[in-house]
Amino acid sequence: MTGRRSFWGWGLEKDEPTNEQRQETAARLSKRFGRDVTAPPIPRIEDVTLRAPRTTPPASLREFTTSETYDRAWHSYGRSFRDVIRAVRGQFDNPPDVVAYPRTEAEVVATLEWCGEANLTAIPYGGGSSVVAGVEPPEGGGPSVSIDLSKLDQVLEIDATSRAARIQAGVLGPALEDQLRPHGFTLRHFPQSFEFSTLGGWIATRSGGHYATNHTHIDDFVESVRMVTPKGVWESRRLPGSGAGPSPDRMILGSEGTLGIITEAWMRIQGRPVFRASAGLTFDSWQAGYEAARHVVQAKLWPANCRLLDPVEAGSAAGLKGDEALLIIAFESADVPQDAFIREAVNIARAAGGRIDDSAIKISDGRNEEVGREGAVGAWRNSFITAPYSRNMTAGTGLVSDTFETSITWDRWPEFDRNIREAMNGALQRVCGGGSLSCRFTHVYTDGPAPYYSFSGMGRPGAELEMWAELKHAASDAVIANGGTITHHHAVGRDHMPWYREQRPPLFEAALRAAKEAVDPQGLLNPGILIG
Amino acid sequence: MTGRRSFWGWGLEKDEPTNEQRQETAARLSKRFGRDVTAPPIPRIEDVTLRAPRTTPPASLREFTTSETYDRAWHSYGRSFRDVIRAVRGQFDNPPDVVAYPRTEAEVVATLEWCGEANLTAIPYGGGSSVVAGVEPPEGGGPSVSIDLSKLDQVLEIDATSRAARIQAGVLGPALEDQLRPHGFTLRHFPQSFEFSTLGGWIATRSGGHYATNHTHIDDFVESVRMVTPKGVWESRRLPGSGAGPSPDRMILGSEGTLGIITEAWMRIQGRPVFRASAGLTFDSWQAGYEAARHVVQAKLWPANCRLLDPVEAGSAAGLKGDEALLIIAFESADVPQDAFIREAVNIARAAGGRIDDSAIKISDGRNEEVGREGAVGAWRNSFITAPYSRNMTAGTGLVSDTFETSITWDRWPEFDRNIREAMNGALQRVCGGGSLSCRFTHVYTDGPAPYYSFSGMGRPGAELEMWAELKHAASDAVIANGGTITHHHAVGRDHMPWYREQRPPLFEAALRAAKEAVDPQGLLNPGILIG
Repeated sequence: MTGRRSFWGWGLEKDEPTNEQRQETAARLSKRFGRDVTAPPIPRIEDVTLRAPRTTPPASLREFTTSETYDRAWHSYGRSFRDVIRAVRGQFDNPPDVVAYPRTEAEVVATLEWCGEANLTAIPYGGGSSVVAGVEPPEGGGPSVSIDLSKLDQVLEIDATSRAARIQAGVLGPALEDQLRPHGFTLRHFPQSFEFSTLGGWIATRSGGHYATNHTHIDDFVESVRMVTPKGVWESRRLPGSGAGPSPDRMILGSEGTLGIITEAWMRIQGRPVFRASAGLTFDSWQAGYEAARHVVQAKLWPANCRLLDPVEAGSAAGLKGDEALLIIAFESADVPQDAFIREAVNIARAAGGRIDDSAIKISDGRNEEVGREGAVGAWRNSFITAPYSRNMTAGTGLVSDTFETSITWDRWPEFDRNIREAMNGALQRVCGGGSLSCRFTHVYTDGPAPYYSFSGMGRPGAELEMWAELKHAASDAVIANGGTITHHHAVGRDHMPWYREQRPPLFEAALRAAKEAVDPQGLLNPGILIG
Repeated sequence: MTGRRSFWGWGLEKDEPTNEQRQETAARLSKRFGRDVTAPPIPRIEDVTLRAPRTTPPASLREFTTSETYDRAWHSYGRSFRDVIRAVRGQFDNPPDVVAYPRTEAEVVATLEWCGEANLTAIPYGGGSSVVAGVEPPEGGGPSVSIDLSKLDQVLEIDATSRAARIQAGVLGPALEDQLRPHGFTLRHFPQSFEFSTLGGWIATRSGGHYATNHTHIDDFVESVRMVTPKGVWESRRLPGSGAGPSPDRMILGSEGTLGIITEAWMRIQGRPVFRASAGLTFDSWQAGYEAARHVVQAKLWPANCRLLDPVEAGSAAGLKGDEALLIIAFESADVPQDAFIREAVNIARAAGGRIDDSAIKISDGRNEEVGREGAVGAWRNSFITAPYSRNMTAGTGLVSDTFETSITWDRWPEFDRNIREAMNGALQRVCGGGSLSCRFTHVYTDGPAPYYSFSGMGRPGAELEMWAELKHAASDAVIANGGTITHHHAVGRDHMPWYREQRPPLFEAALRAAKEAVDPQGLLNPGILIG
């Protein structure tokens, strides 16, 4: 990563759109929606005035802390729709008072000690890609410190024999892969936020990654974790597997910065794939596609990719006609040819109504060539990677767009999908006078899919936040009422708390609160998140 | 299961050996060890006198509770070496005062309420197969109630679409499979204790099952859990996957009855395998064998079986000559032919020095025939299944034999194995004047194996417990000092507590204790286990 991060949008400053580009986008939206759309000018940091810092770090911390406007503005938000709207408006009402950039674990400890002494809210900050207000200071809270782990960005140790590496928590995805690559290894955890999210963030939020089946969450790649808490350091043993009590790591996974600050982890890595196989099958209907996905995953061939796009998404993101669903199946391996696997999976999908020419099944066994970079499969891949940037273009034009994701068992899925679509189409009609809604499966399990819905509608400029809130509320209500989880891999943060409360067992809440009090008795860490 | 359980040994009463059979075994041991070995007579329940019950259930619970000697003696112990030695001696110094057999969840709740009102220790009891004193009342404790879940033995619901089933926690392995079989499904969780262990016990202890790679522990098959605690019922949502906070189920998995009594769970089930492939490869050395196992698992073909026996175990349990290691690889599937998989795995193992004739690779694709039931592989399988019964024959003869199991990363493994063997051979020499030691891998991970050591030596009749304690102590010290886990799938119980304390992060202990206090403020449930 070269260059400074955009304080308001996705990516680096140098990737920010110009006002001219935003106006061109607005003109396209004008045409599409038949009304006059304009893009407000992008904010300039020199125009931003923040509340004066309410606390000052002690001299011993000055070298790695700052209260500069740029740093505080940048660390005010994650990168959700709501975040970018607020930021593009130059609205930073509740910034952290101080941003710390500890360069060592000792400096993390020192920062947290200061927070304890001065009773400051401590907010662990990885890449800042949260879409659930997970790195935002609590409203109405006291002084807060955003603890940015980005200086802890090294792969410290590689154990080639065990295929594991000790990695600092603040490393961003690309830098992590850059450090593993020379050794022939990869973590292969590629969330959509990959460029601007960190290992520690993935662990804290149970990030969902590259693999669409089997080991989908970062959870399964964690061998041990080291975490700084207000009561000291918590570190688990490196173990391939254990049955000694409940897993200590599984209490950290998903703790969203409420129990401590993850500083490093031993992660399971792997050889870089050289055997690859990929196929994109089309289906006459969404239903035929998801039945096929179910059959494929239940056969336990464990494809690396098994993503299903509904006809709307296959049209908008993969260039199909809009009346066919697309199932992308891919296998990869560092060691073993994958042709037998893809043929079995394609057979299953064809038997369920999928169409693909034999010549369109791409196999590059042993030649270490990328496959799945052309045609509909490749188009979808590009669309997936660039999606987070598109919001920089449209923020503030009145466009209201977001995604929500969940998981549900297969038996409930058809009715779940109908109910979600009914609720969301109704809400889009009510709030925006209509809009678009699409769905894909990001991950699939033997017992159910993880559907990911995208919606958008044209709202009124200046009213985007209220309109978004109504749509998000409708989506969350529908997900929880129909038996889903409020998040499969986007985390809870502040945005999902009301529904998370409904979802989780109340006694688990009590147990988790007690666990937090044991390691963070002052409640310094991310108050209001996970624990009400 | 037809017939009453043996109150002292493994299995049913009708499977108990006769005194004559035990004397024959003793005669064989006499010959083997060159000294006079006798087998004390097996205990008779009519000769057992227990401490008078220190509490009496209220009238409302009388229908499903008892203080009969048989029930109290049977529920005094699990089935570890130490347990069977004590039981065969008729020594039941600290029996539970009452055994409850709740027939409904409401009766579980009522039993636990009574325990709360009368301040009684509550001990959840599944199949009683614990080998770590996990179902034994605490020494010096007050009155205790063993809560036997065996009447909750039904598969309540099968969701064929999602391949999941709602199952009561008290069902034993065979009865569970019997209820799934007519629907074409199976859980395929086959710990060595399968005949006399329950679903709830597997979940509470993070049981390790059939699959040697990938989804090895019961953990991965749990979709949701329902548990009765002193503060009420804790039930998670049925979800194929979730990223909403730390997993509630993962806090229950491994909780060993300290947080509540599991009453039912939704489990991921699967189609019954009809495609099978199996191969047993021999290796010149233990080292060549474990390098091969590492390569096979790191290729991520995910064989159902990938068990490696060291030369001693391959000799004693699989009928080989005693100078070769044996790697058993097997694949199975309900849906997909497995020949391509076994061929890739065999290629990898051969490249690492493994020997097998092509004709010895058994593939029964689609014919639903069992494979791997003949030759060395079949011999080992029989030995595995019948092993728990052998202790009924030798208990009290002076023979000291036990197993311990762990996991360790591959980089440390060779030195770990050397150190464990050195420690155990030294201890066997010291304690028994020598003995036998062998090892197998029960499960293998990309980052390390789960080795399982078996040891035995001839001790002095009457001194078995002290001699066993010294050997167990040496094993546990060596495992922990060399970086392993005190248990991969046998649980912590009372026996492993000193080493579990060393292994786990102290702050995790604090968090777990706090979590327990939140759901069990009186500390009724399994006091002394997991939480010191």
